[in-house]
Amino acid sequence: MEIHRRWLSRPRVVVGAMSGTSCDGVDAAMVRLHHHRGRIKIELLSTANVEFSLPFRKALLNATEGHLTVEELAELGIVLMDYYRRAIAESIDYAGISPDAVGVHGQTLWHAPVGNVRWGIKCRTTFQLAVPAVLAAAFNVPVVSDVRTTDIILGGQGAPLVPILDWELLRNPTKYIIALNIGGIANITLLPPTASFENLIAFDTGPGNVWIDYAMQRYWGKRYDVGGTTAASGQIVPHLAAQLQKIDYVTVPPPKSTGRELFSQQMIEELIRPLDRTLIPAEDIITTLTWFTAWSIAENIRRYATDQATIVVSGGGAHNATLLAMLQQELPAAHIIRLTDYCSIPEQAKEAVLIAYIAYRTLGGLPSNIPSVTGASRPAILGSITPPP
Amino acid sequence: MEIHRRWLSRPRVVVGAMSGTSCDGVDAAMVRLHHHRGRIKIELLSTANVEFSLPFRKALLNATEGHLTVEELAELGIVLMDYYRRAIAESIDYAGISPDAVGVHGQTLWHAPVGNVRWGIKCRTTFQLAVPAVLAAAFNVPVVSDVRTTDIILGGQGAPLVPILDWELLRNPTKYIIALNIGGIANITLLPPTASFENLIAFDTGPGNVWIDYAMQRYWGKRYDVGGTTAASGQIVPHLAAQLQKIDYVTVPPPKSTGRELFSQQMIEELIRPLDRTLIPAEDIITTLTWFTAWSIAENIRRYATDQATIVVSGGGAHNATLLAMLQQELPAAHIIRLTDYCSIPEQAKEAVLIAYIAYRTLGGLPSNIPSVTGASRPAILGSITPPP
Repeated sequence: MEIHRRWLSRPRVVVGAMSGTSCDGVDAAMVRLHHHRGRIKIELLSTANVEFSLPFRKALLNATEGHLTVEELAELGIVLMDYYRRAIAESIDYAGISPDAVGVHGQTLWHAPVGNVRWGIKCRTTFQLAVPAVLAAAFNVPVVSDVRTTDIILGGQGAPLVPILDWELLRNPTKYIIALNIGGIANITLLPPTASFENLIAFDTGPGNVWIDYAMQRYWGKRYDVGGTTAASGQIVPHLAAQLQKIDYVTVPPPKSTGRELFSQQMIEELIRPLDRTLIPAEDIITTLTWFTAWSIAENIRRYATDQATIVVSGGGAHNATLLAMLQQELPAAHIIRLTDYCSIPEQAKEAVLIAYIAYRTLGGLPSNIPSVTGASRPAILGSITPPP
Repeated sequence: MEIHRRWLSRPRVVVGAMSGTSCDGVDAAMVRLHHHRGRIKIELLSTANVEFSLPFRKALLNATEGHLTVEELAELGIVLMDYYRRAIAESIDYAGISPDAVGVHGQTLWHAPVGNVRWGIKCRTTFQLAVPAVLAAAFNVPVVSDVRTTDIILGGQGAPLVPILDWELLRNPTKYIIALNIGGIANITLLPPTASFENLIAFDTGPGNVWIDYAMQRYWGKRYDVGGTTAASGQIVPHLAAQLQKIDYVTVPPPKSTGRELFSQQMIEELIRPLDRTLIPAEDIITTLTWFTAWSIAENIRRYATDQATIVVSGGGAHNATLLAMLQQELPAAHIIRLTDYCSIPEQAKEAVLIAYIAYRTLGGLPSNIPSVTGASRPAILGSITPPP
């Protein structure tokens, strides 16, 4: 369509906004995007964050698990959009520039690409709560939302979407780059010099912070190991390390993906509870879990990529210095660098930048899912566009 | 935007699809639309209807009232879209033409423009279940959905949307036209020769079929009075007629709107139960309720429009010959004609045509809500556009 060529014909400013499954709040990022000779340049202009109130966070978490009325769901949507509106407005204020468009991920309240049969129909479903009309009216620009559904309709998992951003931001014609995101689960996108949109490989390597965070909560009531200082103060427990290394997932060849179902609280509890009767200090457990995260990432890179790569780290785990040091020990030939040091995008803004980037592509008529990663039958333009009223 | 001029520059074929609050099934209508000298010509190409299965209908009705999980809601959406897909595919098959776009209303599971305050935010909400990505993938055309939300965000009621179609289809530079829709509730759109988009008047006159249908169910276990034959066989009960005429709503000046809350089963039950102890035949009650519907429409037309008008009737009540005859008796100077005889659009296809028409306007960058009717702060482009993948 004509709109697409016009949209891509000059630089555009887009705000992306994202709230993750941890239900903490909304991250917004304003970026300037420029389509030039088949590549899209991404320049970060500002970021903002608004945290959910505790009662609202609880209501969202309840909605992911319990029963509610459609009235309650619709009300959650309006309140959620007010948080999004504030985060987006903040990013606009900081940059002092009006955006050409907004992209919103919405709050994932349900994601089940496996699906059930209901009334004779196979229902593969995902549900991102959002009311884009609120933001289209507030900012008077087109709003792109609901970016996961189409991939699922086309047979894909609706996730991960981040590899296309890794490809755009990080690929290099002379270097092998690996994008490593350490969230609850850790995942990598492989970017050899020959990487193309069509044949990208991305997969989950195993645990990210999930078990470290659990153990920090269990022993000290803390949410996470700030900077990796606790892990730095302990020793690896050889018996626990050996047990962890037996987990099949790490060495299974890709494609593969996992979640908190496999790397569960129950599983780690079963492994560490016997140690309560020993004199092993809790710090040593944190150290061992941190080492296992580093080892499982390194093992996947050794087996299925190359240990000579430049590894660009994002996600909360990028702030865990001990984890990164252990990863460097495991992969002495690799060059490990944080995302912000590599391309000036803060690690925690990456997903909001992703949503802005996908919104830009959708308005330009470009597909954003990668079939070799999600399993969809074909590349697709993602999301719905709500025009300004 | 450039796309708008291009979209409007030549005739477009659009399928509209609608499922109403009665939860019976999906109506689809394929129309050809042609923007020419400020007017949009609408040519009906085909219609189709697919009925919901009884268990699915029950599940939808339960969703409007009870609690459910987001998983269940998402699954209902996928199954609903399969009904929509079948109705749209049928209308395409009948016409033998591929559409340029699809519009879907979705299933209203919640509508509360009054709203509640939640977490300090005023939440005025409406929820039309739809998964437009399913249809965008199935038919490979843009899909317009969620056409009520923006009007609500702008302070309106999100309803009625039909007056703009009445204006487009029926307005006449030399005649006073009144569009009369007799559904559960009856409503009219006034189209004097001077009618313009900006100052349209449309309002509910009072009951449509709601009480007649209730009494048919009560006395004979039938869903409605087919063709008005029962009403034709009875006499008006003067005492009951006098009581009905005392209902304030009918004579209150517009703007006004009502629903089944006022014209409730409880209210009519209280009026007719005392007659169970008399010898008055049930037919006479049906006749009286039919007369009251005709009288309340006529009284509003006499007071707030003109009895010299051409009245174009749509909705289920257009098939009640006795009701139309009584209306003619009340308004002897009026010219009463069914929609299908006036402009070849079947009465029951009007709402599906409306959705196609709104989708066409949205893709052409034209607003579709009428602030003087809905109460919104301004005209707005309605809905979201899901591009084909």
